[in-house]
Amino acid sequence: MARRSAVETAALRFDVVDSAGSISAITAATAAIGGRIRTLATVRPIEGEPPLVEIELEVEGVTENALVAALEGLEDVRTIHRTRALGSVFGKRIIVVGGGAQVAQVALGAVSEADRHNLRGERISVDTIPLVGEESIAAAVRAVADLPRARLLVLAGSIMGGDISAAADELRAVGIPIIALNMVGSITEHVDLVVSDPVQAGTMAVMAVADTATFDLERQRGRRY
Amino acid sequence: MARRSAVETAALRFDVVDSAGSISAITAATAAIGGRIRTLATVRPIEGEPPLVEIELEVEGVTENALVAALEGLEDVRTIHRTRALGSVFGKRIIVVGGGAQVAQVALGAVSEADRHNLRGERISVDTIPLVGEESIAAAVRAVADLPRARLLVLAGSIMGGDISAAADELRAVGIPIIALNMVGSITEHVDLVVSDPVQAGTMAVMAVADTATFDLERQRGRRY
Repeated sequence: MARRSAVETAALRFDVVDSAGSISAITAATAAIGGRIRTLATVRPIEGEPPLVEIELEVEGVTENALVAALEGLEDVRTIHRTRALGSVFGKRIIVVGGGAQVAQVALGAVSEADRHNLRGERISVDTIPLVGEESIAAAVRAVADLPRARLLVLAGSIMGGDISAAADELRAVGIPIIALNMVGSITEHVDLVVSDPVQAGTMAVMAVADTATFDLERQRGRRY
Repeated sequence: MARRSAVETAALRFDVVDSAGSISAITAATAAIGGRIRTLATVRPIEGEPPLVEIELEVEGVTENALVAALEGLEDVRTIHRTRALGSVFGKRIIVVGGGAQVAQVALGAVSEADRHNLRGERISVDTIPLVGEESIAAAVRAVADLPRARLLVLAGSIMGGDISAAADELRAVGIPIIALNMVGSITEHVDLVVSDPVQAGTMAVMAVADTATFDLERQRGRRY
């Protein structure tokens, strides 16, 4: 998977009548001016009559002014705010999944390291969820493939294997690398890098995705620290 | 802002030709079967001829089978995977923004507390970004309004005010509460709750959004701990 160079993204948030037709009208209006929708997300419902939803829209290939003009013409659209594309604010995402004690320590390392890179113009977020159980963790690993801007997963726990290892293989197949803590179970055979210290695992995760770092995960693949 | 009761959400990830028209065709096909799009996010580009994008789609009001059938009929859609709605996997999001040292300590408290609630069936994520500077932090505070499933913001730092305080007022106006550490600057006058200890701030943040906790932010509004 190659990465496309950064393209200017127009971003708006607006209220719209909550119906199947109104969202279709938005995408048709966007397509009519040549825009490619990158994100259309319902951020919150607004109860009332009629019920509205607040939508975050990010579009490539058009200017923000052109997008505003296209949406202002739609009957169901209300209150348009100009926003910033989420990628320009929150940037690349490191995802940390596993047991609470380990997730917290990986986050400590990753946040501290992201701080150093973000000071130099990077944008790296550290997003975490503590979970227990093979099924929940495997589902979270698979769902990382569905998260916009997710660049690397850290599996932080004491024992993982079975369906989690299968999910790890699937995630790596879509191009998202995985660092795991050294732990019991088959997972350490299904990741790119194994690190024993959780703070260092978090630090290395950030270094692996930062353009401001020289760490190359490719050259470390299969190693254990 | 009232919360709508949970509705079954069909979720798919698929590859599609990267053009303005193909995304419009997807939304038209979804609308034709009565589906309301909740999320349409480009998760990654796939270079080739023609270039493809991988899209995560979440739709309410239709079954997954009906959605698959509707998309399979479209010429530009390839390789459909059945996924799970991100809300069912990663749940409610606590967002932590500020200086690296404080963000890491708030995350420690929040992850530890989320672990306890997630064990009892909750789904709470703790998402963080370390940032420096009034402009960057104010932009991140405003952008929390654009994040799906964001339920509460923790501002973790040592000095914040100016445009960050203005952004905090805007964010609270859309219904997202804010907890701030006790710190220098006007920000502590523009948040719902001020907490001195960062670990406790993270813990209280999770308690405030967990259905499995009895903490009521409404009753604590304006207080300092």
